[in-house]
Amino acid sequence: MNRPIGVFDSGVGGLTVLQAIARRLPGESLVYFGDTAHLPYGNKSREAVTRFSLEVARFLRRRDIKLLVVACNTASALALPRLKRELGIPVIGVIEPGARAAARATRTRRVGIIATEATVSSNAYQSALRRLLPGVKAVGKACPLFVPLVEEGWWSHPVTTAVAREYLAEVSKARVDTLILGCTHYPLLKPALASVVGPGVRLIDSAEETAREVAELLERLNLRSPRRKAAHRFFASDGPKRFLSLAKRLLGVTADRVTIWRFE
Amino acid sequence: MNRPIGVFDSGVGGLTVLQAIARRLPGESLVYFGDTAHLPYGNKSREAVTRFSLEVARFLRRRDIKLLVVACNTASALALPRLKRELGIPVIGVIEPGARAAARATRTRRVGIIATEATVSSNAYQSALRRLLPGVKAVGKACPLFVPLVEEGWWSHPVTTAVAREYLAEVSKARVDTLILGCTHYPLLKPALASVVGPGVRLIDSAEETAREVAELLERLNLRSPRRKAAHRFFASDGPKRFLSLAKRLLGVTADRVTIWRFE
Repeated sequence: MNRPIGVFDSGVGGLTVLQAIARRLPGESLVYFGDTAHLPYGNKSREAVTRFSLEVARFLRRRDIKLLVVACNTASALALPRLKRELGIPVIGVIEPGARAAARATRTRRVGIIATEATVSSNAYQSALRRLLPGVKAVGKACPLFVPLVEEGWWSHPVTTAVAREYLAEVSKARVDTLILGCTHYPLLKPALASVVGPGVRLIDSAEETAREVAELLERLNLRSPRRKAAHRFFASDGPKRFLSLAKRLLGVTADRVTIWRFE
Repeated sequence: MNRPIGVFDSGVGGLTVLQAIARRLPGESLVYFGDTAHLPYGNKSREAVTRFSLEVARFLRRRDIKLLVVACNTASALALPRLKRELGIPVIGVIEPGARAAARATRTRRVGIIATEATVSSNAYQSALRRLLPGVKAVGKACPLFVPLVEEGWWSHPVTTAVAREYLAEVSKARVDTLILGCTHYPLLKPALASVVGPGVRLIDSAEETAREVAELLERLNLRSPRRKAAHRFFASDGPKRFLSLAKRLLGVTADRVTIWRFE
């Protein structure tokens, strides 16, 4: 029960999920892995994303995690079944929780999904929504420039607003009342996105809902840590500079807590 | 002498270099490798870029190339010495040719360099310029959003112009008369960049100068192919969709000519 929870993402975006889990479950130790050598996942194929994800998941399993959280939407969309089959421990992705939160939020059954190219074209969110909410109209739109804009730090830059206006035109035209932020980077753009879609559209990010699912599952499996406080560890597969600057900005994580782990 | 020339890049950008070589040397067979599984290189560490580059270079050497052209600026900036040491065949990068073209073009000895984060912070262009042109003032600026903008197809989109205006402010303030496009994607943004820096600034891309260096080296080593026409082959390390759409748009390369080669 004192074993850690593994959380992984292609880069730093998953730290938003880690943060939500840490807030809800302060006694759980978390081991985070950012696959910065292979990022981004969002414009790569199912084969490549599955291969990278397995490599990270096996690394985390060797660190004796009791549960794996796939905090990356693209990896959740493309590699989850394979990870579940292979790992022999419970695995939670972010798609199902995000879809559930959206299904609860929508009044009109018109839901937009913005995500990477790979996530949108996998139809993972669309299928999950249809299962949860028959008759739903789900409109997906790939937004490949959002991740680079977040990583550039232009979270509320006029350029970001202009890009958002262009990307969200279709979704707005479809008159959705709920918009899933289907990539862990996107919550950082919330103010810019909200200004474009207006107050009538609820923005859903998976972090909170995923944290709730983690808590429930640990409870159910009787795997909750009895501790009150816990320490976290951070790994990245490449150069710490960029990872650190965002990790620090998001979570106050400092250099001495990040280890670089290079896959061969 | 009929052995092919290898050309590699992290993705499709290097096709602009391949195109210049093919025009100048129509009798040479070219084998192109786009490392689309690992792209982009530009925000990764020297270790990661060197590891990826070696993997690709070894693959190409197994295809019996007589010469390797590293068409990627980041790989040229970070991995060239290692590739030269290891390969046992001549290796040409794009930094030296680009710097030479800029040194010839500038009147004021004030040269700007726009490139990826990794290329700019390696100081490879700055050092090459200082060697060629004592007293030069070299101003480097990383432009991490340009590659995603090119890949999104927004080559002359107002957003691209707005981003360029912001990125180029420093370089313009330094009153350069010559600007090195230090990434193989950037020539596709030439009209947008020219509109921002104005007619007083010469834009230099390495493709032509690199093709010239390839021709000279083959001549010198007596390795020129005696043929008049040649066929090219294309490999990519991940999903052909995006690679193909740009390869087609740039060069008319069709699906049947691209092989996916996955590294394990």
